[in-house]
Amino acid sequence: MYEMSESWFLGLLEGKHWLSNADYDIDTIFTVLKAAKELKEMFHKGVRKVNWLDGKTLYLIFYNKSLRTRNSFQTGMYQLGGQAIYISPDQVYTPTLPEDMVPYATEAISDVARVLSRYGSGIAIRIYGDAAKWIIGRGHRIIQEFAKWSKVPVLNMEDDIWHPFQSLADALAAFEALGFPKDLRGKKVVVSYAYSGGLKPLAVPQDVATTFAMLGADVYVAHPPGFELLDDVMNKAKKFAEHWGSEFKIVYNMDEAFEGATIVYPKAWSPKGFFPPFNSKVDKEGATAYQNKFKDWIVTTERLEKAGKPFYMHCGPADRGQEVTDEVLDSYPKSLYFEEAENRLHVQKAVMAMTMGSRKW
Amino acid sequence: MYEMSESWFLGLLEGKHWLSNADYDIDTIFTVLKAAKELKEMFHKGVRKVNWLDGKTLYLIFYNKSLRTRNSFQTGMYQLGGQAIYISPDQVYTPTLPEDMVPYATEAISDVARVLSRYGSGIAIRIYGDAAKWIIGRGHRIIQEFAKWSKVPVLNMEDDIWHPFQSLADALAAFEALGFPKDLRGKKVVVSYAYSGGLKPLAVPQDVATTFAMLGADVYVAHPPGFELLDDVMNKAKKFAEHWGSEFKIVYNMDEAFEGATIVYPKAWSPKGFFPPFNSKVDKEGATAYQNKFKDWIVTTERLEKAGKPFYMHCGPADRGQEVTDEVLDSYPKSLYFEEAENRLHVQKAVMAMTMGSRKW
Amino acid sequence: MYEMSESWFLGLLEGKHWLSNADYDIDTIFTVLKAAKELKEMFHKGVRKVNWLDGKTLYLIFYNKSLRTRNSFQTGMYQLGGQAIYISPDQVYTPTLPEDMVPYATEAISDVARVLSRYGSGIAIRIYGDAAKWIIGRGHRIIQEFAKWSKVPVLNMEDDIWHPFQSLADALAAFEALGFPKDLRGKKVVVSYAYSGGLKPLAVPQDVATTFAMLGADVYVAHPPGFELLDDVMNKAKKFAEHWGSEFKIVYNMDEAFEGATIVYPKAWSPKGFFPPFNSKVDKEGATAYQNKFKDWIVTTERLEKAGKPFYMHCGPADRGQEVTDEVLDSYPKSLYFEEAENRLHVQKAVMAMTMGSRKW
Repeated sequence: MYEMSESWFLGLLEGKHWLSNADYDIDTIFTVLKAAKELKEMFHKGVRKVNWLDGKTLYLIFYNKSLRTRNSFQTGMYQLGGQAIYISPDQVYTPTLPEDMVPYATEAISDVARVLSRYGSGIAIRIYGDAAKWIIGRGHRIIQEFAKWSKVPVLNMEDDIWHPFQSLADALAAFEALGFPKDLRGKKVVVSYAYSGGLKPLAVPQDVATTFAMLGADVYVAHPPGFELLDDVMNKAKKFAEHWGSEFKIVYNMDEAFEGATIVYPKAWSPKGFFPPFNSKVDKEGATAYQNKFKDWIVTTERLEKAGKPFYMHCGPADRGQEVTDEVLDSYPKSLYFEEAENRLHVQKAVMAMTMGSRKW
Repeated sequence: MYEMSESWFLGLLEGKHWLSNADYDIDTIFTVLKAAKELKEMFHKGVRKVNWLDGKTLYLIFYNKSLRTRNSFQTGMYQLGGQAIYISPDQVYTPTLPEDMVPYATEAISDVARVLSRYGSGIAIRIYGDAAKWIIGRGHRIIQEFAKWSKVPVLNMEDDIWHPFQSLADALAAFEALGFPKDLRGKKVVVSYAYSGGLKPLAVPQDVATTFAMLGADVYVAHPPGFELLDDVMNKAKKFAEHWGSEFKIVYNMDEAFEGATIVYPKAWSPKGFFPPFNSKVDKEGATAYQNKFKDWIVTTERLEKAGKPFYMHCGPADRGQEVTDEVLDSYPKSLYFEEAENRLHVQKAVMAMTMGSRKW
Repeated sequence: MYEMSESWFLGLLEGKHWLSNADYDIDTIFTVLKAAKELKEMFHKGVRKVNWLDGKTLYLIFYNKSLRTRNSFQTGMYQLGGQAIYISPDQVYTPTLPEDMVPYATEAISDVARVLSRYGSGIAIRIYGDAAKWIIGRGHRIIQEFAKWSKVPVLNMEDDIWHPFQSLADALAAFEALGFPKDLRGKKVVVSYAYSGGLKPLAVPQDVATTFAMLGADVYVAHPPGFELLDDVMNKAKKFAEHWGSEFKIVYNMDEAFEGATIVYPKAWSPKGFFPPFNSKVDKEGATAYQNKFKDWIVTTERLEKAGKPFYMHCGPADRGQEVTDEVLDSYPKSLYFEEAENRLHVQKAVMAMTMGSRKW
């Protein structure tokens, strides 16, 4: 009944991994967004399922908890005609880098990736924080190791450097909110620190800053001293801004950054100086104590009104009363919070169809 | 091959929640049972799958263990053409009421419900006992909170007040056993306490008493002093009995209650006086010590024979040697134990098809 | 699109359990391998899904961790048109033998099997080691108890005696590697102990020795003293060897056994004398200390070259640096390690189609 046996983007990136948006060129990012927009329109017209990935299985390996990511992948894969299998690391011998192998408790990623490649059509992984030992970059290395050995597409469901599907979902929400401009030139997008008592990865702010720069926005990164993002990543974002002739700035004051913004994206992350390789050891207590000095980095309705009522974005789940007030989350009219969450479904379906789909039938 | 693109009950309650049978009128309960009977007949003719919920996803959120409920929902959803995703609370930030939020460990139900509503077509929840802090009624409030925020049907898979799909399954088993009378008038149905050393919720006896009263039965509730069910619920059951002109009685002796019964449903529950809001604190030790006085409330073959061989019902899993002897469970000829378990599948499919189905194609 | 509504082997063993290859006759084993070969060819031609088990659900009950087994069953069931539901024992009241029942924590296998039989079309179980209390044979008894009560096929996903789908996958890999001879007569297959610090079940070596004997191979079992396999099982293997006029030998030296072998299968297992019923108690420390004397039972490239370069087999996951060197696993040209893993998918699909499929449509 819902047969749609062809789509222009099906298999367009057949067999490719998706570890980071910045691994692709700008045109490809626009292509993904265009495909996601079409998928969203189909979905809202009531087309709940197509047969594009019929018979294909995607393995979802989670080292961390997840609501949006797990359910949007598992639902989306099914809506494309395939199935996704949810795997938590306590259910398998933990897939591990060569240097971290523990006999009888771990299995080499090289083996896991090669075995799963024999059965299914894709492997998606989430790993950051404790699961990556809080050595910043180790989570990404684990996903790279999967990509090295897998013969089927590897998808990054968030590591300690990148969260590509989040920022693609955010980008789609931004384009929607702005009436689908050709690109984001002339739009001021502020990726800001916001306080949380919890220790969060750097993936979201880094990915959002980079991806929005890829799309032409003027990107402002705002944070207290000590919350610098990775140099490598910032340099990538800067280069994309230069490509477009757009601005890329780092500022140290939330209100100053918000001033006249089109979009603000205030979100907690951890001060990297307390963690390897930037510190000799993992110092969670030090990091927590340090970030507790910045409780005034909270988003309130007043603050947003003072800034000129920008669109509010957050990847979710937001720490209510810390990153943002309940009032903003539940009733700020220009919040894109739930639109971003929904768009996870659509951008992931786009990338799954492109990488796991076949061009020939 | 198994295409059956239409059914009279598909989408009949499109978009509605199902938190309690008593939220609906009596006719609707009969309608569900009629639909379930048809689904069961189809199933036994070998129709294993239809496409009615093709492309639709149901999220199953379990705060408690489950064999029958989880597998009957997950199997049933698939047999209707959809998929169900099993979520245990350790796999997500626990969805929580506003007053119970714990930073970095919980997520507001309002957010969880709204996000999942964007991806799928239904949310089912089980929560009682420890997961609801043993504050009687809190489990039901959690499910109501989901229903408040969800844009798709919310289904109650058992809370601390109601277990609607269990009593619907039981009702279908009763009608089958009795040769499908028009209603249950003149049938004596005994919902009785039976001993267990474990602490069980009040949901099953409350729901069975109410639902069988909705269907016209003479309902007897039998228990030792201290095992009173909730007044609110008992008043509902009483009103349904009055509607039919049927009896509704509370008695304090198992044998007296069983005498001349058509059906007996002996099942453990906890003495509510040891738990909030009926006590100032959760007193599990007190409750356990108290219920240990009633070990003679066990169902034996002799007892059933003395009562005149009524049909035996239990929602499962029964505590063998406490609530009931092995002999009754394994060889009493009028036991409906496995029929009730099977009927979970059929009544749930009926309600899923009615609430999650679409009337237009 | 991928409709293939008939197959000669669909439903050939309709309704039968599969607890051990040795429960079947030799012809049936060849039939399974033939069906698996066809399924593998279809798979590699791009046929990712058929509708043979459309509407059917298989329950996967795991008491132990699993990568290959879980994912090959869950993927394979979907590729046959059905669904598999993954159940870990912490998600249900643990299904238990009558003598091991713990109130409120367990449920009788007799009940679990009968309930699941009402919903779905098959039950698969894995249980060994701690989950079976290290009483050798208890895991197999648990699976037999399921088979006794289930009305749908019960499949053994590895217990403490047998691992039938592993050795079927291995057999298929052997036939492939050898160019599909009529049978394995004249091929020397060595099932050898290899060192691991972990405590592993006897299932794989026992099943491989027996199944390869069923197929006509000359089977050599090699191990240090104290690692004797079960007499019952060895007697079965011996009889199969006699049937073919093939050799069946037990030797106590790895190199001697390897000499001139066609295939070697070196794999850790535990010294059974430290466990009931061969010991009065479970003595893990004693077993570990004892097996630590045999660290030189490791497979190296040199050892394989000296033996004349036999094919190398292992069920996976191999303990790198203990059972085998990284070098062998990652670059020995005659390793069948990943082929064996892939074949799990194909042999299991064959048996699922045969036992859970229907001959009439």
